[in-house]
Parts: sequence; C-alpha cells; structure tokens
Amino acid sequence: MDDVLGGITAALGFTSAALHCGIKAKTGALDLAVIAAERPVAAAGLFTTNLAKAAPVLVSREHLDRAAGHARAVVVNSGCANACTGDAGLQDARNMARAVADALGCGEHEVLVASTGVIGVALPMQKVVPGIRNAVQRLGRDAAADTARAIMTTDPFPKEHAVTVTTPGGDFTVGGIAKGSGMIEPHMATMLGFLTTDADVPPALLRRALTESARDTFNAITVDGECSTNDSLFAMASGASGVKIDDRSYAALLDGLRAVSRHLAIGIVRGGEGATKLIAITVEDASSPDDARRVARTIANSPLVKTAVHGADPNWGRIVASAGRSGVTFDVDRTTVRVGGVLLFENGLPHDDASPRAAEHMKGAEIRIDVNVGTGGGGAATIWTCDLSAEYVRINGEYRT
Amino acid sequence: MDDVLGGITAALGFTSAALHCGIKAKTGALDLAVIAAERPVAAAGLFTTNLAKAAPVLVSREHLDRAAGHARAVVVNSGCANACTGDAGLQDARNMARAVADALGCGEHEVLVASTGVIGVALPMQKVVPGIRNAVQRLGRDAAADTARAIMTTDPFPKEHAVTVTTPGGDFTVGGIAKGSGMIEPHMATMLGFLTTDADVPPALLRRALTESARDTFNAITVDGECSTNDSLFAMASGASGVKIDDRSYAALLDGLRAVSRHLAIGIVRGGEGATKLIAITVEDASSPDDARRVARTIANSPLVKTAVHGADPNWGRIVASAGRSGVTFDVDRTTVRVGGVLLFENGLPHDDASPRAAEHMKGAEIRIDVNVGTGGGGAATIWTCDLSAEYVRINGEYRT
Repeated sequence: MDDVLGGITAALGFTSAALHCGIKAKTGALDLAVIAAERPVAAAGLFTTNLAKAAPVLVSREHLDRAAGHARAVVVNSGCANACTGDAGLQDARNMARAVADALGCGEHEVLVASTGVIGVALPMQKVVPGIRNAVQRLGRDAAADTARAIMTTDPFPKEHAVTVTTPGGDFTVGGIAKGSGMIEPHMATMLGFLTTDADVPPALLRRALTESARDTFNAITVDGECSTNDSLFAMASGASGVKIDDRSYAALLDGLRAVSRHLAIGIVRGGEGATKLIAITVEDASSPDDARRVARTIANSPLVKTAVHGADPNWGRIVASAGRSGVTFDVDRTTVRVGGVLLFENGLPHDDASPRAAEHMKGAEIRIDVNVGTGGGGAATIWTCDLSAEYVRINGEYRT
Repeated sequence: MDDVLGGITAALGFTSAALHCGIKAKTGALDLAVIAAERPVAAAGLFTTNLAKAAPVLVSREHLDRAAGHARAVVVNSGCANACTGDAGLQDARNMARAVADALGCGEHEVLVASTGVIGVALPMQKVVPGIRNAVQRLGRDAAADTARAIMTTDPFPKEHAVTVTTPGGDFTVGGIAKGSGMIEPHMATMLGFLTTDADVPPALLRRALTESARDTFNAITVDGECSTNDSLFAMASGASGVKIDDRSYAALLDGLRAVSRHLAIGIVRGGEGATKLIAITVEDASSPDDARRVARTIANSPLVKTAVHGADPNWGRIVASAGRSGVTFDVDRTTVRVGGVLLFENGLPHDDASPRAAEHMKGAEIRIDVNVGTGGGGAATIWTCDLSAEYVRINGEYRT
C-alpha cells in the first residue's frame, strides 16, 4: 500500500468543488462543497447515535435506504449544523439534495447531505441553493484540497489522505477527508468524514467494510467525550479502477479504508480544540476487546489525565483511578501502567524512580500510555485522544460570541 | 429545623482536634484531625465504588464490619491519599487506627480512618503517629472550624454545617464537614464527608438514613466526572440528646442528615477546582428518576456545556446534544430547555429571541438549567456541578509540580 496525493478525488471516477456561498460570515471562507461520482455508485453511511439527530443525518439515512446503498453525490456545508431546526430544517436538507440533483440530472434520493457548525440556526437557503448550482458547474479533479478546507469549523488544519492498494486483481485507490474538532466522541461514526474508492464494491460489502474500518479508527478517538448531533461518515465506490471486491479481496478494501480512516481520525485528534499533544492509550489483557475499549475510553476522557498530560506530569495515579471507575472488573494489584514505555506502576506499587524518564517523554507531542489490566483474557484496544488545555476552555466559552 | 453553629461538634457527645503534623510541606498547614465520641457509638460509612480503593477505605470498611456498626473515633489526614500504596499502605492505615485506639483506650476496630491528597505516596508515619497522640490529648469542642480546615487539599474554603431538628420527642442536632474539590463524581459516597448527630440511632437505621440522604446530596454532585480512590462518607450518632430515632421519627433524622449533606455537597461544587459558577441541572418527566439522573449527569459532565456556562453563553444546543447522547430514550421534539427559567428550546425549535435574557442570568454565580424530556413518566432529578475554567486546567496541569 502506498500513500498518494489527491485526497477525496484521488480515486478515479470522482470530482469535487468547494466555494464560499455566504454561510460563514468571513469573506471568502469556504463553506460549501460537493463531491460527485460520474454515475450512481455504491455508497454507505454511518451516523451519530445521538437521539438529537440533525436534519441532514435523517435525510441522508433515508436517501441511502431509498437508493438501496447507491449515491451520485454528497453535498456538505460548514458554519451551520442544521440541527434542532424542526420541520423547516428537514425541508432545507431535502432542498439541498434537490438542488444538487437538479444540477446533476439525477434523483433527489441519490444525493447525500451533511452539515456542520452551530446547532439551532437555520441555513440561509437563499445563499446555499445558488452556491450548490455554482459548485456543480465547477466540479473537477483539482479541488480536493479546497474540499477538505470547506468542511472545517474550528479545525486548525484540513485532514485529507489517500492510498493506493495493490491486489492480484490490480490496483485501486482509497481517498478521504474529515473534519473535527470539538464535540468529538463518535459512536458509530465521526463528526464528518467522506471516503471515496475506485474499487468496484457491492453496497452491502462497502457498508460492512466501512463499519469494520470505523471501529478502530473513527470510533476509537475522543477529544472531549461529546457525541455530536451531526456525526456522519460516508463512503462511495466508483468501480472506475476495474478492480472487483469480493469476499476474497475484501481484506484489501478493508486495509485501504482503515489506512485512510486512521490517518484522518488521528488528524481529528491532533487538531482537537486546544490540543497540544496526541495521546495513544492502549489497554491490554482485559477480559474482552470491549472491556479494553471501555477502560481506554474512560482514561481518554478523564479531565485529570488530560490535564496531567498537558502539564507533562506522569501522574499514573490518575490513570489507575480512572481505569478503576470505568465499570470494568480487574485486579488493580495485577495492573501495570507505562508512560512512553516507562514502567510506573506494578504489583500495586509505584516505580517513582522512573518518573523523570516518563516526564521527559511527556514533553513531546506524541504520548503513549499503556495499561495492562492482567485479567488473562487478552482483550486489547487503542483509543486516541488529546490533552485538555486552557485553549479548549477559551474556544468553547467564546464559540458563539 | 434551624441552622446552628458548631459544625462537626455541634451535636452533643463529640469532640475534635486538628493540627499540623508535617504531611503537608507548608509550615502550619493543618493536615491531621481526630473526631471522637465519648464512648463507642452507632456509626455508618459509604465508600467509593472505584476498583482502586485506598488503604483507609479498606480498613474503615473492615472496622465497621468488625465493630457491627459502631465506632469511637475517626482519624483523617490530608496531603496524602494513602492510595495505591500496597501492603505497606494498608499497614499504615491500621497503625493510624491503632495510635488513636491506644491514646483513647478503645479497640483498634472502633477507629475509622480516612485520607486525602496525592495518590501513590507513602504516609510519613514517623510524623503521623506522634501527631495523632497530640491530637487525642487536645480533643475538645472548640476545634470544629480547624477540623473542617484540616481535611482540605485544593479546596478554596472549608465546608461545615449543622442544624437542630425539632421532633415531638425533643430536639437533636446534626453537624458535618466535607472536602472536595477535584476528582469529584461520587458514586455511593463523596470525597470525604463526616457527619455527627446526638440523636440515638440504631446502627442499621443510621446506615439506611445515610445511604438515603446521600442519594440526592453527595451522590448528586459532580465537578469533573472523576470518582476517586478515597471517597468516604461517615456518620456517627452519640445519642447524647436523648432523642430516640425509630421508624416513626426516621423522617426527622433523614431531614437533618439531608439538610447538612446538601449544604456540604453544594459547598464542594462551589469550591470545585477552578469553579466560578454553581450550576443546578434539573431533569423532569423522564421515564424514571434513574433516567432523569442519567440525563442530568451527562449534561453536568459535558465539557461543552460547562465551558458555555463559563462564557455565559446560553447554548441550549449543547444541552440538547449532551442529553441526546446520555443513553436515555426520549423524544427531542417533546423536550423543553430552560436556562434561568427562560424557555430556549421547545417543539424541536429554538426561541432565539429569549437568548439575551438567558445570557443575563448566566452572568450570575448560580445557574439553573431545567430540561423536561416529556416522556410522561414523571421521573425527576437534580445534579449540581460547576463550570469548567482555564483555572481547572492550570490547577491539574501543575498539581504535583
């Protein structure tokens, strides 16, 4: 597998466009994008489990059902989440799809919709609809970087990635873009992510691969433990490479999706609101992978662990205390804690002499925390998160003002 | 019921002492206290549900069992949690009890032990044991305020309260002290709390009243969602008022315990690390009180809600989004959100014109958030929390350094 350039349009058969239509107040700030296939192609989506699902989530889920796992295009805006906007919001999301469908000459239910931004504000449809018409006219293969930018809100940098996967049946490409960067603890999907591939994949297999690849990538990250109203992850497969995916070549597709998804997911954490450090928390030897994930997630969402990492303090006590309240059963006396590979806690006792070496590791930008809970069950999982800084407080105390 | 002075020794039959024995580095900083009854009295304890239970928690639980719900005294230190300290830590906790028992002339298992402070550090027993002997010699009824101070760590102010309850059988008094102020989301008990009463209560009834009164007081607060290794809440009943508590007068005891506990618990939230505002989150009309508690707790622990409150931003979207990810089932379109009594969200739609009035309320020091989830079930609960400030990050990034 090789990294390639081209982001969301690296895979053959896809075009994109991005522009400023006026949802964001700042002149020229990209706030609208369309990603299109040459014809209706296999498509899959994963959506937020939040009860408060935004209008575009409801509409996209319905469209995927009605089109039996196919789509021609995705339209996405930033600056307004179109969430908690009632029936008028639902109609706005449908009208976004219709505007794309009219311009492309396809069915409304072949268009998926995504929105991100402030909750509870109506979309300025008098700007969005002309913007969509403009975007469809500009669709091309040179707008990938702008498309990655157009979906950003508080993200400090765009997230895009693409790989080419070599199989006995030929090469195919997987590309994608994603955005964060607050309200991030995806359950079943992430904030917004879009993946394209030119492999030829039946819809059911694409859905299975998307679900499986999300488990250890988009669903293994957390910035602040907040699952949003708009989380959506889409994949579209054009088939333009001529490489057919079946049960035998499924693993190659999964590898490609996972590689791009992991890169984008970790990018979301690196760009988490106020983040200065990436933290990888691995829990091993739990009774099951689910137990390992739960312990890792509790540590990852602990404000005391996150602030300790921010202060480069190898405070293993907070790690043990958060693992201990995770609801998972294990024996603290059989638990080991390592920070940056340095053993800090074992047999119920600290190794305080090792603390300065762990503190040295924590001054870096990438922090490793490894916890072995010693159940003999062998369950393991990694969760990625970031530190908690005063900047997170500043961003979120002032977001709407 | 009337508020009275006297804190932990307001109830007849109790004495206390507090001093600096040298656990805390700062000269003169109070770090050790003893609370004693004139004879072994009815006692009850609630302890952390964290798997990583500190040595004093294990020892106190064992002593309460062995003494069949009786105790003569509690010894408590601050500055060192005696948690994750292995067998040596257990021995230290036992030796603290023994030192009190020797000085008072009672059995070791009639002494309860509590510690709070840094995890994973051994107690300086060569300072603690002489300190305990000194403290027992100084026991009196004039040290309540110092006793409340001696259990503080990062708490910005001491928490003490006492009430006198009038019953047909006569008056009795309930007093107490508590400390926070980080790693606060008690499950079954709070960080450290001590209650005394001069009512005459059988141990089983005292335990029942303590459990019941904690549910809507100490167990209804959260600062940062972190359940600590040392959470302990103790109650002792001397009987010195001569007022007997039985099934008929149980409600009066519960009222008294609840009044003191609520005052102390809210004090812990007000004094939460970096807190500038007290937030009372009430959820009504859930399917059950447990569901209501779960929704309220999810909102209370949402960093986005806590930072919005910090910035006086009536961001009801974050409130709806956190309620929606709580795992509790309800219909968002039947949900109402009020901030400071001002209706901000109803029928799936915002009332943005009301936003300035809600913002005005949020500039104050006490914030009310009311969420009605409209299930028709009538389940209600209130959780108290505080805002999340940059100061929380500073305190916890630098706690050990």
